[in-house]
Amino acid sequence: MSQADNPFLAIAAPWIAGLTPYVPGKPVSELERELGIQDSVKLASNENPLGPGSRARAAMNLALAELGRYPDGGGYDLRRALAEHHGVSPASITVGNGSNDVLDLVARVFLQPGVESVFSEHAFAVYPIATQSVGATARVAKARDYGHDLDAMAALVTDKTRVVWIANPNNPTGTWLTATALKSFVGSLPPTCILVVDEAYTEYVSEPDFPDATHWIETFPNLIVTRTFSKAHGLAALRIGYGISDPKLADLLNRVRQPFNVNALAQAAAIAAISDREHVRASVELNRAGIKQLIGGFDRLGLGYIPSVGNFVTVDLGRPAGPVNDALLKRGVILRPVGNYGLPNHLRISIGTEDENARCLAALEAVLAA
Amino acid sequence: MSQADNPFLAIAAPWIAGLTPYVPGKPVSELERELGIQDSVKLASNENPLGPGSRARAAMNLALAELGRYPDGGGYDLRRALAEHHGVSPASITVGNGSNDVLDLVARVFLQPGVESVFSEHAFAVYPIATQSVGATARVAKARDYGHDLDAMAALVTDKTRVVWIANPNNPTGTWLTATALKSFVGSLPPTCILVVDEAYTEYVSEPDFPDATHWIETFPNLIVTRTFSKAHGLAALRIGYGISDPKLADLLNRVRQPFNVNALAQAAAIAAISDREHVRASVELNRAGIKQLIGGFDRLGLGYIPSVGNFVTVDLGRPAGPVNDALLKRGVILRPVGNYGLPNHLRISIGTEDENARCLAALEAVLAA
Repeated sequence: MSQADNPFLAIAAPWIAGLTPYVPGKPVSELERELGIQDSVKLASNENPLGPGSRARAAMNLALAELGRYPDGGGYDLRRALAEHHGVSPASITVGNGSNDVLDLVARVFLQPGVESVFSEHAFAVYPIATQSVGATARVAKARDYGHDLDAMAALVTDKTRVVWIANPNNPTGTWLTATALKSFVGSLPPTCILVVDEAYTEYVSEPDFPDATHWIETFPNLIVTRTFSKAHGLAALRIGYGISDPKLADLLNRVRQPFNVNALAQAAAIAAISDREHVRASVELNRAGIKQLIGGFDRLGLGYIPSVGNFVTVDLGRPAGPVNDALLKRGVILRPVGNYGLPNHLRISIGTEDENARCLAALEAVLAA
Repeated sequence: MSQADNPFLAIAAPWIAGLTPYVPGKPVSELERELGIQDSVKLASNENPLGPGSRARAAMNLALAELGRYPDGGGYDLRRALAEHHGVSPASITVGNGSNDVLDLVARVFLQPGVESVFSEHAFAVYPIATQSVGATARVAKARDYGHDLDAMAALVTDKTRVVWIANPNNPTGTWLTATALKSFVGSLPPTCILVVDEAYTEYVSEPDFPDATHWIETFPNLIVTRTFSKAHGLAALRIGYGISDPKLADLLNRVRQPFNVNALAQAAAIAAISDREHVRASVELNRAGIKQLIGGFDRLGLGYIPSVGNFVTVDLGRPAGPVNDALLKRGVILRPVGNYGLPNHLRISIGTEDENARCLAALEAVLAA
C-alpha cells in the first residue's frame, strides 16, 4: 500500500511504510471449506504432532480456575523454574509471548534509525521484520550451502552494528553451527554488538558438536539466547518463550516488556513442561523417525533436500514450488512455500505423525507425476 | 539504575534509560507465605470476581484439544465475531495481547523521537510508558476534579502531537466524559493527531450521556477505540483486547503487530464471550451492588472517595496511604496504592463479592481505628 493509498503514513514513523502489511492467513477450517476438502494434513508450521505432555496439561487445567485474575506480571514462579532448569539466576530470564516477543524486545531496546542489524540469507523471517519495525537497517550476509556463513556475517559487522541474529539450527533450512564455530564468532564481536542465538529447535538436535549457548552467558555478556515452548514442548497455541542473558541485559529487555505479556495458562504449562524430559524425549524420537521416513520418500522420488536437524525438512522440487503447492492444497496437504526466504523451488515440510508423513509423500508423488 | 550501573545503556536507544525497570510483583501465594497469612482478599487489579461466563469456558475447553498448533495469526473468526458485534468491518479490528498491546501498537506506529503525546494527570499508567518506550515526549494536562480537563488537554495539542490518550471512564479515578464533550473534543483535533479512546471499563457504565465511541469511527478516521476482555468479560488471565478504527489506521497497527500475539484459547473464549450479554449483565449487577456497599462503608467511616462509574472506587484516607496499605496487607487485604498516579493519600479498591467487600471494609475500619 503506497502513501497515496494510506494517508496515515504521512503521520506515522517513516519506517512503517516499509513494513509489509500483515495479510491474515485463513484458518484450516476456512481453507477446507473454500477448497471443498476435509481432514487435511497440516505440516506447515513446525508444530509438535504430539502437542503438550500430560504434565503441562494437568498444570494448565489447574490454572483454569483463576481465569478472571491477571497473570503474574513478574513471572515469579516461571522465572524460578526456568532459572533452575538452566542453572542461571532468575534475573537472567526475560519471558515472552512466544520467543518472537523476546526478539522484538531486543530490537526495541538496541535498534533504532541509524544503527544496523546483521543476519543471514535464508534466516528466520522475524529478524528483518523486527529490524524494520524500529527503523534500523538490515545487513544480509550471503549463505553458504544454505547455512550461516559466519565469515560473511563478521565482515558486515561495523561500529554501527547493534544486533546480530543467528538461529541455530536455522529455520527454514535446518542447517546448524558447531560449538567451536559459534563460540569463536561470539568472542570476535565488539562489545557494542548484541548476539542473539535463537535456539527454538535445539531440543531436536543430537549432533555431537552442537552447542548449548545458554552455558556461555557468563563468558559473553553481550549474548542472549532465546528458547520457545512452541516446538518440542508442544505449546504453540499458548504463546510462551524466553530469553537467557546477563541480568543487566535482561533488565533493559524487561523495561520494554508489557507487564502481562505472558498469559496465566502459558506460565502454568511452561513451569510443568520444562522438567518433563520424557515428553521431550518422545517428541524427539517421533521426529527422528519422521525425518527418516520423509527423506526416504524424497530419495525414492528423486528429490533433493536440505539436510535438517530440526523438526522440518525443506525439499527441493527442482521447479517453481507455487503450482506444486497449489496442487497439494487441493489434495488437503498444507505445506510451507519458502519463496519469501529466497528459496522459490523449495517447500518446507514439518515432521508429522507417521500417517501424516505418508499422506504428504503420497500426495507429493501424485502431484509430481501429474 | 544509572548508566554507570548498566553498561548496556551505552548502546541502547537513548530513551531506554528513562524507562523504569519493571519490578516483578510477587504472586499472592508468595506474599501470603512471606506475611504468614492465608485466604487473603485481592481487590487490587480491577478484575471480575465472577471470572468468565459459562460460554467462554465451554469454548475454551474445546480449544484445549489443539494446544500444539499455533493460534490463527490473522484472528479470522475472532475479527469476524467482533466486527459483527460492533457493526463494523473485520478490517477495522486490530487484536491485541490485552488492550495494553493495542496501545503499544499505536505508540510504535505514530510516536517517535521529536513528536509528542498528550494525556491527563491521574490517567492510566500505560500512556506515559508507551510514549517513553519509543522515545517520544509526553505532555500531561492538569486534571479537573480528578477527571480529564478537555480544555487543558486541547491547549497542549500542537502540530507535533501525534497521539492523545483518553480513558473513558478513567482508571484509577473512575471519572468519565459525556458524549457531547468527547465528540466535540475529537472533532476539534487536527488530522495529524490520533485520538485513542480507551473503553476498558465501558460495560460498567450506565450514565445516560455516556458515549460508545465505537459508533464514531466512520465520522472520525483519526479515532481508535480500545476494548478489553479483562474486565466485565472476566478473562484477564488469558490476555485479549482489541482496537476499532478506520481500516487504514488498523492496517498500520497490524504492520507492527506480532502475527501470533493473541493465543488460541483467548481467541476461542473471546468469540464466545462477546455475545454473552447475560454474563456481562450479571457482572455489572454485582458491581453496582458492590460499589453501593463500599461507599456506604466509606460514609460510615467518614472517608471521602472519588465518585466512580468503573469496577473500582478510589478512597481518600486523608493521610499517607502507604502505612495504611501495609497494615491492610498484614490483615490479608490487598488493595492498590496510587501514589504513582499523583494520589498519595488514596487507595484504589476493586469491587469484589459481597463477602470480599465486607472483609475489606472491616479491615479498613480496624486499621484506621488502630
